[in-house]
Amino acid sequence: MRSIDINCDYGEGFGVYTIGALDAEVELLKHVTSVNIACGFHAGDPATMRRAVRQALAHGVATGAHPSFQDLAGFGRRRMSITPDEARDIVTYQIGALAAFVKSEGGKLSHVKPHGALYNLAAQDENMARAIALAVREIDDELILYALAGSLAARAGEASGLRVAHEAFADRMYEADGSLTARSEAHAVITDAEQAAHQGVRIATRGEVVTSSQTTLKMYADTLCIHGDTAHAAHIARRVRESLEAVGIEVMAIAGVV
Amino acid sequence: MRSIDINCDYGEGFGVYTIGALDAEVELLKHVTSVNIACGFHAGDPATMRRAVRQALAHGVATGAHPSFQDLAGFGRRRMSITPDEARDIVTYQIGALAAFVKSEGGKLSHVKPHGALYNLAAQDENMARAIALAVREIDDELILYALAGSLAARAGEASGLRVAHEAFADRMYEADGSLTARSEAHAVITDAEQAAHQGVRIATRGEVVTSSQTTLKMYADTLCIHGDTAHAAHIARRVRESLEAVGIEVMAIAGVV
Amino acid sequence: MRSIDINCDYGEGFGVYTIGALDAEVELLKHVTSVNIACGFHAGDPATMRRAVRQALAHGVATGAHPSFQDLAGFGRRRMSITPDEARDIVTYQIGALAAFVKSEGGKLSHVKPHGALYNLAAQDENMARAIALAVREIDDELILYALAGSLAARAGEASGLRVAHEAFADRMYEADGSLTARSEAHAVITDAEQAAHQGVRIATRGEVVTSSQTTLKMYADTLCIHGDTAHAAHIARRVRESLEAVGIEVMAIAGVV
Amino acid sequence: MRSIDINCDYGEGFGVYTIGALDAEVELLKHVTSVNIACGFHAGDPATMRRAVRQALAHGVATGAHPSFQDLAGFGRRRMSITPDEARDIVTYQIGALAAFVKSEGGKLSHVKPHGALYNLAAQDENMARAIALAVREIDDELILYALAGSLAARAGEASGLRVAHEAFADRMYEADGSLTARSEAHAVITDAEQAAHQGVRIATRGEVVTSSQTTLKMYADTLCIHGDTAHAAHIARRVRESLEAVGIEVMAIAGVV
Repeated sequence: MRSIDINCDYGEGFGVYTIGALDAEVELLKHVTSVNIACGFHAGDPATMRRAVRQALAHGVATGAHPSFQDLAGFGRRRMSITPDEARDIVTYQIGALAAFVKSEGGKLSHVKPHGALYNLAAQDENMARAIALAVREIDDELILYALAGSLAARAGEASGLRVAHEAFADRMYEADGSLTARSEAHAVITDAEQAAHQGVRIATRGEVVTSSQTTLKMYADTLCIHGDTAHAAHIARRVRESLEAVGIEVMAIAGVV
Repeated sequence: MRSIDINCDYGEGFGVYTIGALDAEVELLKHVTSVNIACGFHAGDPATMRRAVRQALAHGVATGAHPSFQDLAGFGRRRMSITPDEARDIVTYQIGALAAFVKSEGGKLSHVKPHGALYNLAAQDENMARAIALAVREIDDELILYALAGSLAARAGEASGLRVAHEAFADRMYEADGSLTARSEAHAVITDAEQAAHQGVRIATRGEVVTSSQTTLKMYADTLCIHGDTAHAAHIARRVRESLEAVGIEVMAIAGVV
Repeated sequence: MRSIDINCDYGEGFGVYTIGALDAEVELLKHVTSVNIACGFHAGDPATMRRAVRQALAHGVATGAHPSFQDLAGFGRRRMSITPDEARDIVTYQIGALAAFVKSEGGKLSHVKPHGALYNLAAQDENMARAIALAVREIDDELILYALAGSLAARAGEASGLRVAHEAFADRMYEADGSLTARSEAHAVITDAEQAAHQGVRIATRGEVVTSSQTTLKMYADTLCIHGDTAHAAHIARRVRESLEAVGIEVMAIAGVV
Repeated sequence: MRSIDINCDYGEGFGVYTIGALDAEVELLKHVTSVNIACGFHAGDPATMRRAVRQALAHGVATGAHPSFQDLAGFGRRRMSITPDEARDIVTYQIGALAAFVKSEGGKLSHVKPHGALYNLAAQDENMARAIALAVREIDDELILYALAGSLAARAGEASGLRVAHEAFADRMYEADGSLTARSEAHAVITDAEQAAHQGVRIATRGEVVTSSQTTLKMYADTLCIHGDTAHAAHIARRVRESLEAVGIEVMAIAGVV
């Protein structure tokens, strides 16, 4: 029987600010198996981080660090021309900060998923990918690295000796070349729960995804990402999970998958 | 034979900025046994933190976290009216960040010393002192907490079950009531190395200090602080250490003292 | 005929973050005559500031700067022990930044209202109040300073030669000593639009307010503050304005009042 | 008789941090005619900004804003993938903040020179160059825009109707293609005062510069930049100025040149 992880970003508020309603966010925890918690550089002040960690642990969800470029005003979505050493250093800093809250609350850090522009850069730039993998491994070589399925980031992680979670997106449209459809396009984000569930099941069972141009693309994934910042995120997550389980796929935290 | 630790703040630059010359800072590492490394809130960006940790480990000096109020413009010297929970959270965050660099560089975090206004607040406010001690203990109950000798912060640390390093200052003048002479006073900082060495030895051997009004004050200390930001810091540190050793006191990292 | 201004805080998002829905915020602009726009220190990145200024100008609402302590994580609600010179400098910086957007969008900065903990500090501490008034006057002595009605901040502003807008709150409960009921109390914030309107009219027509202990307090005001961060803010603002106009009070921007 | 401006960056400390000694920085003011003052994004907290403005005005030096990407840890030297609108907004914000200090201290803002990576980006990217020019002109169309001599940034400024100061570097080596020799090269920065003076005079009198490969390059300049962060900056500035004056060139603030 095949198994797969469902992850979402979590704790992406800052101070008085939240992304959507706090109770809607908690609702997500009933359906995902892993969360990637913001570490203060694109979101997540210390109080928000502790609350997010506490909620995840209370729901038995695996906690991961979600390090980013240091750009709160841009929510970590703007690329910065930093060196690989600088990337390693900001990743080390943020993993450590989040790990302390996890330890403080009685849990154990499960994984690391770079955020936004840093995630995309790691997928395309081998030196950056290596620097990030190095940062993770130096802190704890049992940490699992999340990376875009089949990307340079995934290969660099594996080459470094880390376990890697190849990631695909249940609620994002893919282009024929394997890239995600740009968010500026109308149908980039799949908001229909059944469509997202269908895409998730196809990835998990057949290892493929249907692209925006109706071609079929190979897509192996250990984990499916659900975007937590949409209005119906919890509903989408629930439908993706139910649909996977309905076809006999076991949904579990990433440590049991890779 | 009595033993004592000598500590100084370290890695208090930020980005292109340094406090004094970088090579002068490294010189200090030959004479102190513990350093308190800035964690990003009053000083210390990630690159500076890694360099500071690496230098300390290369010199066999014990590494500690030096958490602060979040106030880079004020260098952590301005009190903020945060709650005890907020204090706990910012301390957790910063210890974690620094600990990750120490782990990454192959060392083990030794201790935690709050910085500046947070250190002073912890010495005077029991709820803050408890919150900080809790943050430290939740991460690792083997961490040693540095606190003003005999203060509420020291007692709160001990009550929480942590080992506490009572700290006195070799190069600061004391008032008759046990407080440090305000920096606005001309003789607040002792810049003469022999005078600092003399004060350090008197604290270590007789458990007392002569105040600005020539009274004598009881002063028990496990660790002596040397300020790293003065021009002759390395020279002062060397003279304090030599003078302690000359009277048969063993100078060693705090873990061997408390 | 008596005239009065209605003001609210505005543009208090940051990057991707908003306080409530953006369209609800715009709705407020139909009912208030002045807004206080965040300047980056407690809220308000540059893009948010321009949008807020543009919206205010499009609705013919007077634009003011809303400077704060530098504390994004605490939303400017935590007091910091800064010096009067530091207060003057952060206020100068923030007024300038906001004024540039107003100029850029073809408007003219109308007023300055310190935010949160800085507002409260100015009301109680004469040196801080003077420093803030000085910062305002040095930039433009035609700027109007908003201050808690009858406070030290108001007197310091008048003594400096500035026009001062004495401010009262339509939607906050007062204590018998003239202070606002602490937000930790259940009835601190008046969420019933009719009650807020009633309080606003009483202040404007009789110069008094009924306190939580049912005593009556003298309360002269040039401007009434409505809190923009509540769900029914626009409705409350509308009812306060309609009720004032119903009794013959002219609601207009502060420059016409003081 | 030909005239030219000499400018340097100024006020690039932050909080307790300084670039070099403060008195060495002041010494520079005796020899330059314009300074570009950091506005808080790569350097320059509010207190540092006021001090820098006050010193410049006291020496009769023209004050300009030196806006940057928001990247204190990277000192504004790392490119960020922001949009032209975002560039316009951060430039508006920073010019406004600095202008307020200049107004507060009784002066008048003279010019704007983008800093570091933003300066380089403006020289190469027409949309960014236009956005920055627009930001400047919207605030005050009498402000002078500094731009790399002959660059897209200079042309965009002129096209927008602004007066533009074409800038060349007295103390930087040029490559044959007109670019500055990368700082990673040994001879990128000219530290010999006589060589810098010679290059400055050649630019001013013949409109040309000798490159690292001994070719001659046309180089028209309205202003010569001296780097303020080197040990002998004041000496270099003095020699450049003396040498210019010795050949009959009048050294004056930019408003008299363009």
